[in-house]
Amino acid sequence: MIQDLWLIGIGTGSPAHVTCEGMQALREAAVILVPQKGTGKDDLAELRHRIITASGTTARVIGFDYPVRDPELPYLERVEAWHDEIARRWQAALDGAAQAGPVALLVWGDPSLYDSTIRIAARLDPRPAVRVVPGITAIQALTAAHAIPLNTVNGAVEITTGRRLRDHGWPAGAETVVVMLDGECSFQNLDPTGMTIWWGAFLGMPEQILHHGDLAGVSDRIIATRLAARAEHGWIMDIYLLRKA
Amino acid sequence: MIQDLWLIGIGTGSPAHVTCEGMQALREAAVILVPQKGTGKDDLAELRHRIITASGTTARVIGFDYPVRDPELPYLERVEAWHDEIARRWQAALDGAAQAGPVALLVWGDPSLYDSTIRIAARLDPRPAVRVVPGITAIQALTAAHAIPLNTVNGAVEITTGRRLRDHGWPAGAETVVVMLDGECSFQNLDPTGMTIWWGAFLGMPEQILHHGDLAGVSDRIIATRLAARAEHGWIMDIYLLRKA
Repeated sequence: MIQDLWLIGIGTGSPAHVTCEGMQALREAAVILVPQKGTGKDDLAELRHRIITASGTTARVIGFDYPVRDPELPYLERVEAWHDEIARRWQAALDGAAQAGPVALLVWGDPSLYDSTIRIAARLDPRPAVRVVPGITAIQALTAAHAIPLNTVNGAVEITTGRRLRDHGWPAGAETVVVMLDGECSFQNLDPTGMTIWWGAFLGMPEQILHHGDLAGVSDRIIATRLAARAEHGWIMDIYLLRKA
Repeated sequence: MIQDLWLIGIGTGSPAHVTCEGMQALREAAVILVPQKGTGKDDLAELRHRIITASGTTARVIGFDYPVRDPELPYLERVEAWHDEIARRWQAALDGAAQAGPVALLVWGDPSLYDSTIRIAARLDPRPAVRVVPGITAIQALTAAHAIPLNTVNGAVEITTGRRLRDHGWPAGAETVVVMLDGECSFQNLDPTGMTIWWGAFLGMPEQILHHGDLAGVSDRIIATRLAARAEHGWIMDIYLLRKA
């Protein structure tokens, strides 16, 4: 049984993205629950441990393994079943240790944005008191790296996924669109006329790569860069902003 | 002449929102430029000074006064003229002090989101090298305070302004909409059927107020709370998220 569950946003790659509140929460936690493997992203696991060490916490660090998603199930069902199983694994991994005090989880970016941790926490029985410590999102890391505003003056911004961009095309009437979770460079399917792209991978990390320009002009360069960087590291996290003139 | 200009996102009300990178940048800056008055938000000025003190910086702190916007001009022109004047005041306030090293500005929330600092910096002549240090936005502070995800699974999110919501209504096809810069509780103009609202004011501050529920049910309560809190403090900063079933 977990009484207090703290979801701590850690930003997108730099330990320096962690807020003072995040560092303090790590120090006050009794237990820190960390994914051990199964993500294929060893650099991220190492980053989590660097942040834990930097915080100076004396919390007990307990690992759990991520389950594999069932590829047979339709998308939403698959996600639901996966979340159920993660919640079970959290509880099994803790096995009494949660009695010691608050349990903390380090969440990539911010716990609110394309992250499942809040939804998984809602599956715990009994339901813990959930505290969310906000973190720098990949969107802020992208705009900061390019030193650009997210929105135009009084303009709207649409945040969407690669899957949605492929299925539904450019959002009707949109001027600025941020695309996340896109493993397929879905900007290829858009009419590039009048469109500018700001792309970034490994944001906040020493390996950070940035490209920007007219979509028609830099599209091929981004696709090639992404392919090469992914082959080199074994994984990639990237995000981009598109603006239509 | 400013050679290096650092725009440091400070989050939305709690000094603990500042990241490790933000604190370090304040310590490495030679000069910190702070608005003195004219915003009518003394609590915010005090918060800036608390952050500067907490960082332990030895930078020289120089004040400047915000100009008043010309109410005679149409909206976009008025904003342009105002930005031009702020850029002139930065340069006048620094008057040689910028030679000492990097000049830092503390930016509410994140410099990318409904903030003019990046656009004002682009007016400086010669143009400085601009570094942006990302900060927690009011959006993250809102979702963290309510412990809710920003998006639904694979869902899109629209970030917009109160002005746009009044002028254009509910964005076509949207499911989740975040409304910022809304001084008029513009959710009143929407059909509340099937809509849930999560509202927050003074996010991150001890004065933080939260309300959420069916829009039809809590709308009046939010309007009354906002009015009373604004009268009490002399100012208010609020934001809300709307989700349509």
